[in-house]
Amino acid sequence: MVYIGIDLGGTNIAVGAVDEEGRILAECSVKTLAQRPFTEIVKDMAGCVIRVMKQGGFTEKDVHSVGIGIPGVADERGVVLNCANLGWFNEPLAAEMGKYFSIPVFIGNDANVAALAESYAGVSKGCHSSVMITLGTGVGGGIVIDGKAWNGAHGRGGEMGHMTLVPDGVPCTCGNNGCVERYCSATALIRMAKQECQAYPDSLILKKAGGDPERVNAKLVIDAAKEGDAPALRVFNSFVYYLALTINNITAFLDPDVIVLGGGVSHAGKFLLDSVRALLPRYQIFKALPIPRLEIASLGNEAGIIGAAMLGK
Amino acid sequence: MVYIGIDLGGTNIAVGAVDEEGRILAECSVKTLAQRPFTEIVKDMAGCVIRVMKQGGFTEKDVHSVGIGIPGVADERGVVLNCANLGWFNEPLAAEMGKYFSIPVFIGNDANVAALAESYAGVSKGCHSSVMITLGTGVGGGIVIDGKAWNGAHGRGGEMGHMTLVPDGVPCTCGNNGCVERYCSATALIRMAKQECQAYPDSLILKKAGGDPERVNAKLVIDAAKEGDAPALRVFNSFVYYLALTINNITAFLDPDVIVLGGGVSHAGKFLLDSVRALLPRYQIFKALPIPRLEIASLGNEAGIIGAAMLGK
Repeated sequence: MVYIGIDLGGTNIAVGAVDEEGRILAECSVKTLAQRPFTEIVKDMAGCVIRVMKQGGFTEKDVHSVGIGIPGVADERGVVLNCANLGWFNEPLAAEMGKYFSIPVFIGNDANVAALAESYAGVSKGCHSSVMITLGTGVGGGIVIDGKAWNGAHGRGGEMGHMTLVPDGVPCTCGNNGCVERYCSATALIRMAKQECQAYPDSLILKKAGGDPERVNAKLVIDAAKEGDAPALRVFNSFVYYLALTINNITAFLDPDVIVLGGGVSHAGKFLLDSVRALLPRYQIFKALPIPRLEIASLGNEAGIIGAAMLGK
Repeated sequence: MVYIGIDLGGTNIAVGAVDEEGRILAECSVKTLAQRPFTEIVKDMAGCVIRVMKQGGFTEKDVHSVGIGIPGVADERGVVLNCANLGWFNEPLAAEMGKYFSIPVFIGNDANVAALAESYAGVSKGCHSSVMITLGTGVGGGIVIDGKAWNGAHGRGGEMGHMTLVPDGVPCTCGNNGCVERYCSATALIRMAKQECQAYPDSLILKKAGGDPERVNAKLVIDAAKEGDAPALRVFNSFVYYLALTINNITAFLDPDVIVLGGGVSHAGKFLLDSVRALLPRYQIFKALPIPRLEIASLGNEAGIIGAAMLGK
């Protein structure tokens, strides 16, 4: 049997046929053109599924299921409740796909899907439980328990970006204050760097940005920290501190086998990993017990297809 | 089949035979006398098991398993790693019990066991997932997923009392700062009340304590709040705010069907429940989705036996 995965993004629709082990056997992609009506986008998604089946020489009987990773929330009936990037609210995605083929359709949040991909074919492969934290413009995440993506009882699961980290802290886009996302995202790193540059205008951060605070980005802050720039290191260490607290909170609550860092900021790699790992033991109770392994995500763009495919497994 | 549960506390050992539905069929108890050697305490535990079997007319063949709830942490081999109340460190509890009968033995943390009891016979009965928060001298908790207590991959699971709620906040007995336990326990309620009484010595709290701050306890603070005393209400509202943040964090991360409040402070009942429930919607993203049901634990002292019995189910 093969598993088809659809990575539905605001820019591209990427579709692939995946084997039991999470290896991609055939794939294709088209532009999303997100302004189009719901039914037209779904038609293109279904078209890609059929193209991938032809490419791989599969008939409907060979395909176990079609999984779709969306940047939003769906319910168990396959209705997309909220997908702001595409302007979808209460759209019957599974039912609409059913007009093109009669293969079971499963829908999951893209962060959950990335976590699932890592647990089938990436750095958490073979683990009973894992949590992925995606450190991007915002902070998302996914939980995998016993080989299944855990979406929660009401589709709210894995939203660690909106756990409160600092009561009455920095206002968040969600309407609350002090969310994890305001301290552990690329956006947070940039905000803290800009503040630091105001106080220390000779920082390497500002030099790397050509003197323009508006050009400061996460990579540039981390690069300056790697080179030992004191203001950049203060920003980076603050980021690492908040991330370590978040990881400790996940450990104290769920204690998974592995915690995986993904998203743009995770490209800082070993520099980030070593810094966070060094802080973790300090925050653990039961010092004698082992703690979850902390790793950087190993799958790149393919995670979206692989994880979506594994939704039906 | 019957399931035998042992509630091992610092003061009493309570043992019961429980049916599939979590109903207690026979029970007995003895004093723990915690200063005694490990082997003597285990001998008494085993003696109670045999007494309960006789009482109920069961032979070893009728008993599916013996479960033990301990105020500490055990590993999968049945070794108690850490049970500070009894001074047990690396004690082979399951193996020692095996000297008295050949029934499989399962060991779980007492807070996890209480959560399990509620999910088999209490307020979260029939739910796929639930989280219990015990608001006592400290804050403990338990997670139940698919009818099983979730201990985490390394025995660290369910320790929500030591999630960080306020970075660099009030120092905790665990060595960290700002743990949930420092804001959501009876101890926290008393600490905040004493501070408030210093500023407002005419508070009803102090009157109820006969003018002696050392006699302030959680029930008395809540009683004063119920009667509308302004300082007591400020303390209570602050407690409720921190508890609502903690519940929101659990919802954003795991999103269980039900969240159950247990422990001494939960005896405040509807007054506590209504106050917390009123705050919860404010902290949720995806306003349109339902949130976990919040309830007060419904089983009393029997939870320890029932939950322990269900460990083997």
